[in-house]
Amino acid sequence: MYKINDNYQKLPGSYLFSTIAKKVNAYSAANPDKKIIRLGIGDVTQPLAPAIIEAMHKAVDEMGAAETFRGYAPDLGYEFLRNAIVKNDYQARGCDIAADEIFVSDGAKSDSGNIQEIFAENNRIAVCDPVYPVYVDSNVMAGRTGTYDPKTEMWSDVIYMPCTMENNFVPEFPKETPDLIYLCLPNNPTGTTITKDQLQGWVDYANKAGAVIIYDAAYEAYISEENVAHSIYECEGAKTCAIELKSFSKNAGFTGVRLGYTVVPKELKCGEVSLNAMWARRHGTKFNGAPYIVQRAGEAVYSDAGKEQLKEQVAYYMKNAATIKDGLMKAGYMVFGGVNAPYIWLKTPDQMTSWEFFDYLLENANVVGTPGSGFGPSGEGYFRLTAFGSYENTLAALERIQKL
Amino acid sequence: MYKINDNYQKLPGSYLFSTIAKKVNAYSAANPDKKIIRLGIGDVTQPLAPAIIEAMHKAVDEMGAAETFRGYAPDLGYEFLRNAIVKNDYQARGCDIAADEIFVSDGAKSDSGNIQEIFAENNRIAVCDPVYPVYVDSNVMAGRTGTYDPKTEMWSDVIYMPCTMENNFVPEFPKETPDLIYLCLPNNPTGTTITKDQLQGWVDYANKAGAVIIYDAAYEAYISEENVAHSIYECEGAKTCAIELKSFSKNAGFTGVRLGYTVVPKELKCGEVSLNAMWARRHGTKFNGAPYIVQRAGEAVYSDAGKEQLKEQVAYYMKNAATIKDGLMKAGYMVFGGVNAPYIWLKTPDQMTSWEFFDYLLENANVVGTPGSGFGPSGEGYFRLTAFGSYENTLAALERIQKL
Repeated sequence: MYKINDNYQKLPGSYLFSTIAKKVNAYSAANPDKKIIRLGIGDVTQPLAPAIIEAMHKAVDEMGAAETFRGYAPDLGYEFLRNAIVKNDYQARGCDIAADEIFVSDGAKSDSGNIQEIFAENNRIAVCDPVYPVYVDSNVMAGRTGTYDPKTEMWSDVIYMPCTMENNFVPEFPKETPDLIYLCLPNNPTGTTITKDQLQGWVDYANKAGAVIIYDAAYEAYISEENVAHSIYECEGAKTCAIELKSFSKNAGFTGVRLGYTVVPKELKCGEVSLNAMWARRHGTKFNGAPYIVQRAGEAVYSDAGKEQLKEQVAYYMKNAATIKDGLMKAGYMVFGGVNAPYIWLKTPDQMTSWEFFDYLLENANVVGTPGSGFGPSGEGYFRLTAFGSYENTLAALERIQKL
Repeated sequence: MYKINDNYQKLPGSYLFSTIAKKVNAYSAANPDKKIIRLGIGDVTQPLAPAIIEAMHKAVDEMGAAETFRGYAPDLGYEFLRNAIVKNDYQARGCDIAADEIFVSDGAKSDSGNIQEIFAENNRIAVCDPVYPVYVDSNVMAGRTGTYDPKTEMWSDVIYMPCTMENNFVPEFPKETPDLIYLCLPNNPTGTTITKDQLQGWVDYANKAGAVIIYDAAYEAYISEENVAHSIYECEGAKTCAIELKSFSKNAGFTGVRLGYTVVPKELKCGEVSLNAMWARRHGTKFNGAPYIVQRAGEAVYSDAGKEQLKEQVAYYMKNAATIKDGLMKAGYMVFGGVNAPYIWLKTPDQMTSWEFFDYLLENANVVGTPGSGFGPSGEGYFRLTAFGSYENTLAALERIQKL
């Protein structure tokens, strides 16, 4: 008789955003006249930039003609895209990353869920708390997290690095030594980040401890401050200790287009074993490339027109972020993030729990946000709003909140 | 210090098709004047059908306008696609499969690599021999296959079910009881298949043994004989023992478009645990949906125009299959497959090994095929040619082979 992977049974409840969707649907059904504004899930709303649309139409036409039709893509991704990534995301910032260190994928969610596979089961992971749920859940499924305590909402074998008002949302080096350190900077959900010097400290720490940093840079396009790194490879020594995950979802609006990439430097080795070769093997065995049309769309992100248009798109969302931040501050909230990231993290008022505030906001302002506790125990008492709505909706939501 | 997943180190050599590509590239470089014809990898060459191109252009335009832009897709896939799948691939064949039993993905390679994750490490897998390498390799990575014997090219904990001339390429029930049974029918690489009655025998066997069949139906569009099942759910009792994987790569030429789906029936349970719920959780945690544009392309596969155009496309490739089969038989080869599948499986002449015949064919006819031994030890002494080339190339390749 076959046996299932019992680790799945350990996962508490369902995925955060499914729970939110269910609550919102129930409220909508009971109150069909209320116009709900969603500033919850980190999903973009602006249409794809014209340069990207143009590139996709061209690629579709190529797929319709025998001479230009493309079948299976190269395992790592097309060279035209990997070269554009290297040039724009790395060489332009002085980072020495080569095209065969780039692995194009169908998005950073897949990569951040799958990357743990190349590590042994008995590695100890460290995560910021609060954190993007996929890092922990994918390690639960792999049996790497021990037992779950529903009271503390913590896993026995996970090292939590609290990021709260008290430490200015800067994770501290943990007391126990981790093997794998997940860092998402600028951070989802807090919208905060750390300086380049602080990140250099993490690189030095990892190299000394023999740990690998899994660096999720999905939000780097939103960085506005000078002293914040866009890539971990801006730090010295990062190539011997860091894997970087990148997404096209937030800088180019690709949440429904699906494209991302992972950087595994060739210098990253466990003894004699190259992690680059391991990931290449994983990629070649369990994945068959991102669609040609989507890879051409990715290339257009780096064209002159694409860059110009996407700068405006990011500015549009950051105007929303400023609107939320200022509006909340005027309404008397304590607010964080929103300067180098499209997320605003607020302290719930009146000692409300995160889910109490979720219900309060849904029922009284018809605004949907994300409860901070859904991202980890240290998120309790906080709440996330995103800048990805339309400007009109963002403005309307803030007016409603200010009237509460 | 972090530890790697040591199972990766057990994988012998590199992925079959990478090895072939390297050999062909070396030959090309040394013989730049030779025109090589590739009938090796199972990659399609015909352009996408007009109905699909039209649907993709429309979807691209939708992504370029705020009112019709789509962000994250629903976890399971868009309903328009899942409904079309249910209606055409299941209800039309009398199979009672519901839309929430369909999980849309980026292709059957990902699904066939990932599906093992929801099962425990100590399950025993059974595979046909020869077989698509991903089934075994993904289980090696998960530590489920024991040790590798380079002499026999077999894993100690894998149950091999030889499919050779001697048993007419029909796998026999294994002596040891397996927990997970991978069946790819019509088979890749042999191009052979079994009757619906024989498949019913496997379903009965699995239900009795408490095993799950992972049924890869990637080639069902090529079935021409009446007594062959297009879906395992045509068999009675399959919903309590079978997961079905489907690809759009071969029936619609989507190798570079990337779309597939997996069926996990709600009746498939391990005790009280629903495998449908487990796969939903895996899908929701480590995957973020196939691109909207690609899902619309998939929908067009089921439109009246799409069906008509794809029937012609399949007929085009099957004409190639007949050309190869007849040509090889005239040249004195023993040939199998090619009737319900786009693959032709031939016995190598003169006791040549599969790789000897690969070199012989490359050097003397400048034709690339795939060595049977690359698909498993029982593939030794066989060789695969695919019908996915252009008709002109297929004809030219056969003329060259006949002249040898």
